[in-house]
Amino acid sequence: MNQSDEHTNRQWRLRSRPVGMVRTSDFECVEEPLPALGDNQVLVRNLYLAFEPAMRGWLNDVKSYVPPVGIGEVMRASSVGQVIESRHPSYAVGDLVSGMLGWQEYALADGEPGPMGRLATVPDGIAPEVMLSALGGTGLTAYFGMTDIGEVREGDTVLVSGAAGATGSVAAQIARLRGAERVVGIAGGPEKCQWLTEQAGLDAAIDYKSENLARRLRDELPHGASLFFDNVGGPILDEALLNMAQGGRVVLCGGISGYNEEELPPGPRNYMQIVIRRLTVRGFILIDHFKDAGRALGDLSGWLSEGQLAVATDVQEGFENTPQTLLRLFEGKNLGKQLLKLADPPIPR
Amino acid sequence: MNQSDEHTNRQWRLRSRPVGMVRTSDFECVEEPLPALGDNQVLVRNLYLAFEPAMRGWLNDVKSYVPPVGIGEVMRASSVGQVIESRHPSYAVGDLVSGMLGWQEYALADGEPGPMGRLATVPDGIAPEVMLSALGGTGLTAYFGMTDIGEVREGDTVLVSGAAGATGSVAAQIARLRGAERVVGIAGGPEKCQWLTEQAGLDAAIDYKSENLARRLRDELPHGASLFFDNVGGPILDEALLNMAQGGRVVLCGGISGYNEEELPPGPRNYMQIVIRRLTVRGFILIDHFKDAGRALGDLSGWLSEGQLAVATDVQEGFENTPQTLLRLFEGKNLGKQLLKLADPPIPR
Repeated sequence: MNQSDEHTNRQWRLRSRPVGMVRTSDFECVEEPLPALGDNQVLVRNLYLAFEPAMRGWLNDVKSYVPPVGIGEVMRASSVGQVIESRHPSYAVGDLVSGMLGWQEYALADGEPGPMGRLATVPDGIAPEVMLSALGGTGLTAYFGMTDIGEVREGDTVLVSGAAGATGSVAAQIARLRGAERVVGIAGGPEKCQWLTEQAGLDAAIDYKSENLARRLRDELPHGASLFFDNVGGPILDEALLNMAQGGRVVLCGGISGYNEEELPPGPRNYMQIVIRRLTVRGFILIDHFKDAGRALGDLSGWLSEGQLAVATDVQEGFENTPQTLLRLFEGKNLGKQLLKLADPPIPR
Repeated sequence: MNQSDEHTNRQWRLRSRPVGMVRTSDFECVEEPLPALGDNQVLVRNLYLAFEPAMRGWLNDVKSYVPPVGIGEVMRASSVGQVIESRHPSYAVGDLVSGMLGWQEYALADGEPGPMGRLATVPDGIAPEVMLSALGGTGLTAYFGMTDIGEVREGDTVLVSGAAGATGSVAAQIARLRGAERVVGIAGGPEKCQWLTEQAGLDAAIDYKSENLARRLRDELPHGASLFFDNVGGPILDEALLNMAQGGRVVLCGGISGYNEEELPPGPRNYMQIVIRRLTVRGFILIDHFKDAGRALGDLSGWLSEGQLAVATDVQEGFENTPQTLLRLFEGKNLGKQLLKLADPPIPR
């Protein structure tokens, strides 16, 4: 079976580096014939693309924890796809796999470790949406940030920003599952807040768009937060710093509020609270923790199978909508993991 | 012997809360008769007053780790004085003592713990200048910040800002004494930088006032700093964040650059480097560590007696110059500990 002769591949490539807010015109859609399969390679049909705020950083021409995406290169992204042709002993036609296969309909993969880890087989019974969310990069980020970096423990009072996002929603629930006494989330909009308290089991959710954040934080955290997991930065980080308990821990996971600023926005004005309140602030990057992925996936899978971990996904459709789907993250439109469905599996399983 | 009948006490009291830069007119000099000595009290003649940047924070009417100094109250400060009258069994006339005795010529002390710790007897052979610097609050702050919070260890590459200040100068030398591979200081002016490399044994000193800080940091720390001890905040903190090694530690001790701003200045623009470089940032306050003061004073005294710890002091004179002497800190005039000498010991020892 060789579908590559029958298909043209479509790719979204980076056309220009965004200045300020990323635009759909920063990418261009290109068609090209599928390349020939070499030894130990597999051809994958992408079924779902996953989107995350960190992708904005990959578009900047600055040294970071991964190299920037080059102009003219296919946009880097994780995905789940189906193997439609294989010359690699570990992968059979029909297998569902996940990896950093990029914004394209078809991808050649060689089974070697890429910059974000090796191609992985999707375990039986795991939906692609779950593989890319709770068991994907954002789920693992939530896990390591909350457990290994934040060292969440029984009795903690936990605050999570971006709590209805892919990472925040898992992080907040891990805090609850690990025995936090109280878990409070910050999110934008009543729908997200309702999901947090009704589906994710949080003790309270604060809608920063319509409520007085400073007052709500004081009311919900009268003794301060012992652990704050921040995904957003900006004014929310500043308010949170004024509501930390003495000796508290802050996990810096991301700062989406600043990712599309043309110039670096001012940092947290209240950072001296780190001194006054004797805080410990830790940043981390998922790639350092891949060696412990087995433990994380074991815990996350267990919670999922016991129905203790609610998973939210926002699934858009159509390859032509790829850049627009990325923008949804920065417009705050997604509840849970932002995904784009490209196709159903072409090979019956 | 009862000198209190013979003396009027002069005090500098807080007249008004400073807005922006503290001014001498925010204090007023008041004369009053010495109060009568009660049971278990001692009367102390202040000989040296000590000054530190944190005093600026005590003037603001905000909740912090100690209550603010009240309007009309004697300004809080540590000092060394001589006991000239005693009704307390632990103190004899002629003893040199240190404590938070404030901006006044004479102080009544009751031997009970105050907000910053108990009145302490100055050990024989320790000069008041050393008691108030390397063995005083700033020396202890340097010790706990560098050892317990920063966990300095052999092989570290250490950067210290405000390195010629009372805390920074001791912190930088502790890093050297604890086996850091390289210690780099940042200070303002050639005299301070010369002292750091020639007297304090630092590997390099950067004059942020006359040199290109960004370039010098890159040159002096080609692999980044594994430990940064920050006393200043502002643009120096921002530049340092761009020169941290992956997994580095940042000790936030203070942020003198912002203490006299009318509004809170912007925070560190580069704070996302905490994520990208996987940093751990910790704040601390000395008062939490008083329980371990014995260990700190043992180590510091040992280094002093072995001549391994250089002590710099800037000694002004005259009680009338008390507020001006505080201002020297914020003008960057002091090399080492800022002190004010009020008198020689009135009682021969």
